[in-house]
Amino acid sequence: MSLGEFDLIERFFLRADGQGPRRAVVGNGDDCAVLALSPGMHMAVSTDTLVEGRHFLSTVNPTRLGHKCLAVNLSDLAACGAKPMAFTLALTLPRVDAPWLGSFAKGLLDLADAHGCELIGGDTTAGPLAIGITVMGEVPMGQALLRSGAKPGDDIWVSGEPGEARLALETFRGTLSPGLDAPTFDAVRLAMECPVPRVALGLGLRGLATAAIDVSDGLLGDLGHILKRSRVGCSLFVDALPRSRHVAARAPDTQLDCILAGGDDYELVFTAARPARERLLALSANLGLRLSRIGHIEVEPGLRLWQGDADQVAPTQALANRWASFDHFKEAP
Amino acid sequence: MSLGEFDLIERFFLRADGQGPRRAVVGNGDDCAVLALSPGMHMAVSTDTLVEGRHFLSTVNPTRLGHKCLAVNLSDLAACGAKPMAFTLALTLPRVDAPWLGSFAKGLLDLADAHGCELIGGDTTAGPLAIGITVMGEVPMGQALLRSGAKPGDDIWVSGEPGEARLALETFRGTLSPGLDAPTFDAVRLAMECPVPRVALGLGLRGLATAAIDVSDGLLGDLGHILKRSRVGCSLFVDALPRSRHVAARAPDTQLDCILAGGDDYELVFTAARPARERLLALSANLGLRLSRIGHIEVEPGLRLWQGDADQVAPTQALANRWASFDHFKEAP
Repeated sequence: MSLGEFDLIERFFLRADGQGPRRAVVGNGDDCAVLALSPGMHMAVSTDTLVEGRHFLSTVNPTRLGHKCLAVNLSDLAACGAKPMAFTLALTLPRVDAPWLGSFAKGLLDLADAHGCELIGGDTTAGPLAIGITVMGEVPMGQALLRSGAKPGDDIWVSGEPGEARLALETFRGTLSPGLDAPTFDAVRLAMECPVPRVALGLGLRGLATAAIDVSDGLLGDLGHILKRSRVGCSLFVDALPRSRHVAARAPDTQLDCILAGGDDYELVFTAARPARERLLALSANLGLRLSRIGHIEVEPGLRLWQGDADQVAPTQALANRWASFDHFKEAP
Repeated sequence: MSLGEFDLIERFFLRADGQGPRRAVVGNGDDCAVLALSPGMHMAVSTDTLVEGRHFLSTVNPTRLGHKCLAVNLSDLAACGAKPMAFTLALTLPRVDAPWLGSFAKGLLDLADAHGCELIGGDTTAGPLAIGITVMGEVPMGQALLRSGAKPGDDIWVSGEPGEARLALETFRGTLSPGLDAPTFDAVRLAMECPVPRVALGLGLRGLATAAIDVSDGLLGDLGHILKRSRVGCSLFVDALPRSRHVAARAPDTQLDCILAGGDDYELVFTAARPARERLLALSANLGLRLSRIGHIEVEPGLRLWQGDADQVAPTQALANRWASFDHFKEAP
């Protein structure tokens, strides 16, 4: 690497706008950064590494990549009901590519600024491209949203319109038939490359949701974590699933695969008691964010899909694979 | 990767000893881990990634590698005067090698247990071997040891006997002449591969040291960070430098290069006012850890090396390179 670590940090990740204190600082220039928690708060911590070729394509726009690396971490805070505070960045770079780094930093820091989340520590090394972020947030003691609190009778909700990222992924893989026209591809690609972490929703769900998780691996799989942790089962209603315009344009089985088995959308799936319905709809209106009630928690283990009032839906291969990938579902009939 | 992320974590990094609550847990099995700070405490955070071929050799013993990855991070907490609480682990692995992972986990978790530092979050990805750790500790508000507090007249101290790691590195590089016999190589290799983070010393230095840093890049370079941040200079006394038996056996110039330009020892270099001398010697006795007073802080910028009372020592090439690598020294005469 031709530039030393300090030069890299100074050039790309420190702000020198002369407008009072820098909002984002890599480290405090000392061995550790020091953070203060507000009184009555606990700290929520999550870590995620994105590796080239596995989590993103080498051709991805670096601004979008910078955005996404932080977004997937903020999404974990959101699923926990935590308010973002700070993050550390571990960058492994094959070379110092100044335009690339400038764009990456812009995507990263713009999202950080939007959430008041400060870059407090960094580390750069030479090697194959990988980006590791550890994010810290605060949540009032005892109010963190866990996976383990879902109760029989609770409604199951999902935010936004998951599934578009799957359309983009299948297009990149060449497995989507018929293919997408260019404007549609641009739109679904944006969903995959620039997910919006549902931080405000997570904060709004404190005291309302009984369990929550973000959808990174697919709604079915991630909901499976809630079922397993909460030792419950559920029914989902196919007709209640939110369909984006682009997903709704596909064949019915593809729609289900996109919404239920597609990942990378970073919407939240959560459970809440029936009396919370009115407040959740008010929250939806306040945030301008669609919240859909898609099923309910049941005592009986396993996950059942229904169409209309009484027709059980046979899973497609993609859904069955999703099912099979979780122990919980293996045990279910 | 043939094993899913959860299997890997379950197999190698969770404790299932049936002896009450697990001491080390990867994640709390939720989107985030949640940490509580003690009242009156701030959180200290540091992050370091170790990449194969750059920070360690592919032939390193995995138990030692596990130890070192956490040790270098704990060393940052030590240099800050923070007590270790928890850490996250981002593992990038070329393949699932069970014996390797078992040994790595043992080295990592044994050191974590020794410091009561809990593994709270993890992430595994396929790719070239790299280990990213973010460590969190707590420090009483306003008592963090910074680099910026050194004052003219302060003594400069160093812990332990730095320099042996450099002997090991030069042996691996084939640049050490004459070479080391086998027992000596084993000893200095241990210094390089299993550094002891000076956590207890860091805690003892709260309220005593005016500035501190850990020696990862070499004493001269790391002390340079203190000088720069504190806007001071210093004199160091060659005769006062602590020499381990193996370093003392080398030629005088090599001794200086090892002690002053060698890195990877993870001793602490710190400054303290003269009245603190007695308490520091008592601390040294309590910890069973050598503390050497090697110089003092001065108003005049730059770093001066002295032998005896009045002979200024000309730097060797290795020392001059160390000098030149810091802006501060470039400006000095």
